[in-house]
Amino acid sequence: MNMQTIAQMSCNPAMGGIAKGQIVREIDALGGYSGIVTDKSMIQFRMLNRSKGPAMWSPRAQNDRMLFAATWREMLEQTPNVDFYQDMVNSLVIQDGKACGVVTGLGHTIHAKAVVVTSGTFLNGVIHIGEKRFGGGRVAEKAATGITEQLVSLGFESDRLKTGTPPRIDGRSLDYTKMEEQKGDEDIIGFSYLDVPKPTRQKSCWITYTNSTVHDILKTGFDRSPMYTGRIEGVGPRYCPSIEDKINRFAERERHQLFIEPEGWNTVEIYVNGFSTSLPEEVQYAALRQVPGFEQVRIFRPGYAIEYDYFPPTQLRHSLETKAIDNLFFAGQVNGTTGYEEAACQGLMAGINAHQKTRQLEPLILKRSEAYIGVLIDDLISKGTEEPYRMFTSRAEFRTLLRQDNADLRLTEMSYRLGLASQERMERTIQKKNGVDEIKNLLQSFSLEPEESLDYLVTKNSAPLTQKQRAGQVLLRPGIDLQSMSKAIPRLGEEVKTYSPDMLEQAEIQVKYDVYIEKEKDLVQKMAQLEDLLIPDNFNYDRVSSLSNEALQKFKKIKPRTLGQASRISGVNPSDVQILMVFMGR
Amino acid sequence: MNMQTIAQMSCNPAMGGIAKGQIVREIDALGGYSGIVTDKSMIQFRMLNRSKGPAMWSPRAQNDRMLFAATWREMLEQTPNVDFYQDMVNSLVIQDGKACGVVTGLGHTIHAKAVVVTSGTFLNGVIHIGEKRFGGGRVAEKAATGITEQLVSLGFESDRLKTGTPPRIDGRSLDYTKMEEQKGDEDIIGFSYLDVPKPTRQKSCWITYTNSTVHDILKTGFDRSPMYTGRIEGVGPRYCPSIEDKINRFAERERHQLFIEPEGWNTVEIYVNGFSTSLPEEVQYAALRQVPGFEQVRIFRPGYAIEYDYFPPTQLRHSLETKAIDNLFFAGQVNGTTGYEEAACQGLMAGINAHQKTRQLEPLILKRSEAYIGVLIDDLISKGTEEPYRMFTSRAEFRTLLRQDNADLRLTEMSYRLGLASQERMERTIQKKNGVDEIKNLLQSFSLEPEESLDYLVTKNSAPLTQKQRAGQVLLRPGIDLQSMSKAIPRLGEEVKTYSPDMLEQAEIQVKYDVYIEKEKDLVQKMAQLEDLLIPDNFNYDRVSSLSNEALQKFKKIKPRTLGQASRISGVNPSDVQILMVFMGR
Ligand SMILES: Cc1cc2nc3c(=O)[nH]c(=O)nc-3n(C[C@H](O)[C@H](O)[C@H](O)COP(=O)(O)OP(=O)(O)OC[C@H]3O[C@@H](n4cnc5c(N)ncnc54)[C@H](O)[C@@H]3O)c2cc1C
Ligand SMILES: Cc1cc2nc3c(=O)[nH]c(=O)nc-3n(C[C@H](O)[C@H](O)[C@H](O)COP(=O)(O)OP(=O)(O)OC[C@H]3O[C@@H](n4cnc5c(N)ncnc54)[C@H](O)[C@@H]3O)c2cc1C
Repeated sequence: MNMQTIAQMSCNPAMGGIAKGQIVREIDALGGYSGIVTDKSMIQFRMLNRSKGPAMWSPRAQNDRMLFAATWREMLEQTPNVDFYQDMVNSLVIQDGKACGVVTGLGHTIHAKAVVVTSGTFLNGVIHIGEKRFGGGRVAEKAATGITEQLVSLGFESDRLKTGTPPRIDGRSLDYTKMEEQKGDEDIIGFSYLDVPKPTRQKSCWITYTNSTVHDILKTGFDRSPMYTGRIEGVGPRYCPSIEDKINRFAERERHQLFIEPEGWNTVEIYVNGFSTSLPEEVQYAALRQVPGFEQVRIFRPGYAIEYDYFPPTQLRHSLETKAIDNLFFAGQVNGTTGYEEAACQGLMAGINAHQKTRQLEPLILKRSEAYIGVLIDDLISKGTEEPYRMFTSRAEFRTLLRQDNADLRLTEMSYRLGLASQERMERTIQKKNGVDEIKNLLQSFSLEPEESLDYLVTKNSAPLTQKQRAGQVLLRPGIDLQSMSKAIPRLGEEVKTYSPDMLEQAEIQVKYDVYIEKEKDLVQKMAQLEDLLIPDNFNYDRVSSLSNEALQKFKKIKPRTLGQASRISGVNPSDVQILMVFMGR
Repeated sequence: MNMQTIAQMSCNPAMGGIAKGQIVREIDALGGYSGIVTDKSMIQFRMLNRSKGPAMWSPRAQNDRMLFAATWREMLEQTPNVDFYQDMVNSLVIQDGKACGVVTGLGHTIHAKAVVVTSGTFLNGVIHIGEKRFGGGRVAEKAATGITEQLVSLGFESDRLKTGTPPRIDGRSLDYTKMEEQKGDEDIIGFSYLDVPKPTRQKSCWITYTNSTVHDILKTGFDRSPMYTGRIEGVGPRYCPSIEDKINRFAERERHQLFIEPEGWNTVEIYVNGFSTSLPEEVQYAALRQVPGFEQVRIFRPGYAIEYDYFPPTQLRHSLETKAIDNLFFAGQVNGTTGYEEAACQGLMAGINAHQKTRQLEPLILKRSEAYIGVLIDDLISKGTEEPYRMFTSRAEFRTLLRQDNADLRLTEMSYRLGLASQERMERTIQKKNGVDEIKNLLQSFSLEPEESLDYLVTKNSAPLTQKQRAGQVLLRPGIDLQSMSKAIPRLGEEVKTYSPDMLEQAEIQVKYDVYIEKEKDLVQKMAQLEDLLIPDNFNYDRVSSLSNEALQKFKKIKPRTLGQASRISGVNPSDVQILMVFMGR
């Protein structure tokens, strides 16, 4: 559409967060650029959930919006074989049931071996602010037309979803003394497993709250709200609701938290996270003015909601190729997801698999036990989604395995074998793996003497040793960590001093959480037995007479690839799976 | 429209050039930001016409397109009392013949004491590429509608103009060994009179040429050219013609020069200066491939032409306020000009004068003898323009006075008195002025001995002194310059060493070109006598029976403010002016 808007963030200038941060780490481990770009353009970094177990740790960055887009564009330009052409795609070229190009607004036909549709919120996008509505893919950008209509005529199902964004305001008009400051972490871990320089200073975010006056004012706009008057038909994101949704659904809550996030290093523009709204602008304005610190607020751009077409993702294979048309892939918001990270990982996987397909190679399909990306795609394909889908740690049954700290160990080798992850990345991963193994061995062989550990254990409120004990054993105690232990006990410190912090951290996590990790690995094994049972593409479910009607309908619609996938389809009971298994001759 | 496109350069990423560079220096002297932003975002700097006299020296910079816009936005945000609001203006609020606000697409009325319309190429913009045409203010941006229609209904005259832009291409697809390199200057002078850090490295541009094969291919598209088939009604810029215009109008020329200009520090995108075209894209492509170095070229975005509404500027006062509606100002391309510099200086002047007006202060009107800006505005208002107006040195009758090196001495004090130019800027100007005066005095009192100057004069091929001579006298000789002289003659060098290079250069220019400068100042005096003769606003030209018919019509239409302005209206003869003078009782 416009080359100046490549990697334009539609909504808040932030990457990562709970479960989403893990996805960015996975993208990075696979050789995608999201982590590197985020590291280069961040203005604040925080590791969320530090106080919980490492399965919950989630990196999150606040970004400079313009720098983010500029850095993306530079990295893309520096990527060999990536070509650019600015135009609007109006339709796809389909021949013999196979995608082989696109036709643009300027009338060009661009031929291709495969096509990936990543149209975001642009397909027949309609923007709502109060009672006003107009076409657009984002505010001040044109919507895209033609593609939905063509695909529907080819038998695809499409439906409407909606999402929203808060107003952007003038930071100079805020009174920060009335808000709580939220600083970045002292040590920036960042996203990429490569060595990307991190910023030396950070910008703070701020926290403030709505109150009952704010809510009362917002309610005065409900009769003109596009959502409550039925003008928006699309379903909105349950987990990233608008402020009007929040005061409606959680009527008992007297206040909601707002995160006041700067949009960049040098801009005064501010993003009001938590205040997504499509109420009339004067209502947005009047309500905001009642928020502490916002008494004098000035709005740069109002919040709005956008409705757009998506294609229910049950129409896809696990490779993100459509079932109906060969070599046609869908990725991102067009599949019913919401969020940059959810979109980015699909784009990466669709790109990989388009490449694999055109070279007649096997697709790369990540298992639910291998990556959040695997969970996401499997959820979409197996269950579909009727509201904008976003990732949560709770969606992953193996989240102790799918940590942000080990995405490289989980995924880099796979990607390297495909030719995507670089040599450097692979070598770093091998080094880390070897280092971790050495540290773990060391911890199992290195014994601490009662005397040398006494002071340390006392300061940590932990029982003194009565005899020698292996360091790995002591590490299992609550409150004990490798960093402080090796600082306090010089003989141990000496042994581990050559290892990098991330190796030490990784070894520690593997040792401390070994029991949980092993338990999950067992579970994966058991599930894998189901998972590996492939269901033939042309399997005739109608012949399986004892299936429940719901399961029959779902199976016929979704065409699960494996028994494992069949077992996770919503509405399918374990008995249905067993019947199927029997029928398949197992 | 979209806050992300503030200061988006529509066409080539370059500022300055012949006559335009002088304007940027004038804008800077007045306290505008164009010079500072250009200095901060340049990737190459050249002082054009160095081999000619200083009246012709013209600074020119190649810019990083994204950095230019980002820097502008940052500077605007850091300016107190500048507020932002993203929306589309659909109409103006006019009450009792006075502009007092705007109405936006989202339905807001924004009240204002004055309104400046700077709509560029957006009013009813129509984009053409070959036989394709579609609405747009720039490619991939919406056109603006409503304002023209409203103003016409209020009695304004509007007309159509057109302009064009070349394709943007992939620098990775070029073979630079077939082109000539054009490096930046060793010393970057830059644009701003303030101390703005300059880049430490520069990027080269490249030169290549079209040839008869290229021309032949382009001609194959003429029957589908929007210009030759009459689909474009607007008049195009004669001085910045499309490549099809060039091969048509200069049929005898076998080749045209193309400047291959990078779009930024880190992007591979390239601007093909000299190849502006609206021919069908496949013709653009086929023709480009025949240009040396372009054999493998890939296009990112095609060239196109755009037609848009402008308001013939004879409808304005010298303050850029419209004659018909009080407190309504027009600036930029909407007045029929083309070029960033032409637009920028009008924006600055309209802004200053809107401020003056709302405070009931006298407008700031620069004379033709004071600034290129004065020439530009006076030309527009007196003569109007039927094709896109751009600045040339030849338009200025006092160009020896209007040099790029002395814009600060000419203009900063005026602006400082208005409260625009900063204290720092004023102080630097005073320092420079004092320094220059000291150096000039020194040069008049300091005598060179024959012996100490002998070697120097011999190396410069200049006759040896036979007796003592004042340094200022020696400086008048051709080939002699202050820098080399004070390097070669230590006693002189010692005297001037405390002065900055720009003081020394300024003093030298004033001394060396004194005769021409004084002659022009005399001329200014004489003209000023006419200039100062004000013609009453309600003067009844019909009573002046002996005026030529053409003069009568023009006077009634343009309503010149002074006899000077009357004298410069195209079609007005000196005799008409004399008759008028007599009639006014002089
Ligand atoms: C108003 C708004 C609010 C949002 N709020 C949230 C939120 O609160 N939380 C959250 O997690 N996520 C939110 N998002 C979602 C997040 O921005 C998206 O999930 C993510 O950007 C989707 O990425 P994508 O790559 O699928 O599409 P996009 O980022 O939308 O990119 C699509 C790209 O494709 C281009 N394009 C589209 N159609 C065509 C065509 N026919 N021809 C050529 N180019 C085309 C567009 O120009 C654009 O560059 C919001 C999005 C919007 C618009
Ligand atoms: C295709 C093209 C080719 C060109 N080629 C050349 C060339 O070869 N040489 C040359 O010297 N110059 C060229 N120019 C001209 C140069 O770009 C302009 O002269 C200069 O940018 C004009 O500045 P401006 O401020 O008047 O308007 P613009 O730079 O056009 O800016 C107008 C701004 O106003 C906004 N706007 C417009 N209408 C509304 C509205 N109703 N409500 C809200 N916002 C609105 C727009 O979004 C835009 O941001 C070209 C321009 C174009 C578009």
